[in-house]
Amino acid sequence: MFSVGILTISDKGSRGEREDLSGPEIRRIISELPAKVEAYEIIPDEEEGIVQKLVEYADRKKVDLVLTTGGTGLSPRDVTPEATRKVLHKEVPGMAEAMRREGMKITPLAMLSRAVCGMRGRSLIINLPGSPGAVKENLTVLLPVLKHALEKVQGDPSDCAAQKVSDSSAKARTALSSTD
Amino acid sequence: MFSVGILTISDKGSRGEREDLSGPEIRRIISELPAKVEAYEIIPDEEEGIVQKLVEYADRKKVDLVLTTGGTGLSPRDVTPEATRKVLHKEVPGMAEAMRREGMKITPLAMLSRAVCGMRGRSLIINLPGSPGAVKENLTVLLPVLKHALEKVQGDPSDCAAQKVSDSSAKARTALSSTD
Amino acid sequence: MFSVGILTISDKGSRGEREDLSGPEIRRIISELPAKVEAYEIIPDEEEGIVQKLVEYADRKKVDLVLTTGGTGLSPRDVTPEATRKVLHKEVPGMAEAMRREGMKITPLAMLSRAVCGMRGRSLIINLPGSPGAVKENLTVLLPVLKHALEKVQGDPSDCAAQKVSDSSAKARTALSSTD
Repeated sequence: MFSVGILTISDKGSRGEREDLSGPEIRRIISELPAKVEAYEIIPDEEEGIVQKLVEYADRKKVDLVLTTGGTGLSPRDVTPEATRKVLHKEVPGMAEAMRREGMKITPLAMLSRAVCGMRGRSLIINLPGSPGAVKENLTVLLPVLKHALEKVQGDPSDCAAQKVSDSSAKARTALSSTD
Repeated sequence: MFSVGILTISDKGSRGEREDLSGPEIRRIISELPAKVEAYEIIPDEEEGIVQKLVEYADRKKVDLVLTTGGTGLSPRDVTPEATRKVLHKEVPGMAEAMRREGMKITPLAMLSRAVCGMRGRSLIINLPGSPGAVKENLTVLLPVLKHALEKVQGDPSDCAAQKVSDSSAKARTALSSTD
Repeated sequence: MFSVGILTISDKGSRGEREDLSGPEIRRIISELPAKVEAYEIIPDEEEGIVQKLVEYADRKKVDLVLTTGGTGLSPRDVTPEATRKVLHKEVPGMAEAMRREGMKITPLAMLSRAVCGMRGRSLIINLPGSPGAVKENLTVLLPVLKHALEKVQGDPSDCAAQKVSDSSAKARTALSSTD
């Protein structure tokens, strides 16, 4: 069972001026994985606030997967990729490339998503676009590899297997990582 | 009406040893947009000079769109992507990915374009390869999204609409941006 | 004739606990080029050690092409892309994009390769995945452009032609580069 944090990034959503449809859409799609949503918040398009929340989800809540929605476009307020890149230890460019490429089969505007994907410690962080439709299209592209990716992020195959059977707590994971 | 700056980056072109066919080709293609070319220069493949010119176009001339041609390859003198990345505030990797991918349908050599695209303030900056043929192929890939992209770069949809009707000057844009 | 360095990056391989099948696979495929393997080593997944070896191959051995295999995935020990990016002067993102995209025609897991490609001075450095199968798939994507790319990296077409006829030593190349 993977722990998931969902972060909706939207000025209007955070002020309660727009219902967040994308967060719930992520929750619905992710239910196909063995996944448990442990955090879900709506925050404004402020780089510093996004950075703090990503660090909190990855370092303190230690969720396996952080999925953000919103703030990946070209508007002046769109800063999700910049905030994400600041906290990543390693980037996984192919996930973002694949989402854009598959998205372009539906609309050429998909090339404008500036989404970034990568790892911070043992957490995989993935930016998704803001609209529920684009969330579904993009996340569907990643679903076939997500379980494998999460297992890899958390250690090598044997560590991973051992860990899943015995304990999935942050402490166990930390102890394990020190023997890598 | 969008304002456009065209920058041809070529050692030989800047010395008058080679006619610039790519700058005029950009001008021809861009005429399909509601666009007005406000600057066009030919400069050598020098990183510092490219940086200065990009900053001048974006910050002082405040053109909406800067299109460069040349210097995106693997030769020792090719430094356009490095200069461009230095001035960008935000990168739009999907535009460069799409140009390379579509280009590869014509020639596998298209994977060697190191073109970078992104934003500096309210200006969209796009690197194009050096040859007129590649300029046409690459720019054609972006045309379907360029108007939408430029509107987004300049503010949110409502700002954008208001701005286009009332005033497109740099001053109006600056005033508008302070209320974001 | 291009000089090639092969670097297998594998903890188990470096301890002699796993036979390196990928290094020899690279050697086999690269024989289609006019290429001579001048260095081949197996080192562990340690960022600092990879950095040192890449610098040695590029700056001291002055090989035209460095091909690494391994360490491009999402496991905590996978740091080849980070080490590679540290030594690159210029990135060639399209080569990595093309390898991932073509790889995804075989398995969606190909999107998880974090391979990086680019130049350090006159050396082209290319990350390949760890498995012999993926090495073959990925390198095959690059083969059609590799000779052209290497010629470009080493100078402009005329320099390149002169150089190939007269001398391919590092000294000749250095002398040549000073006249760029």
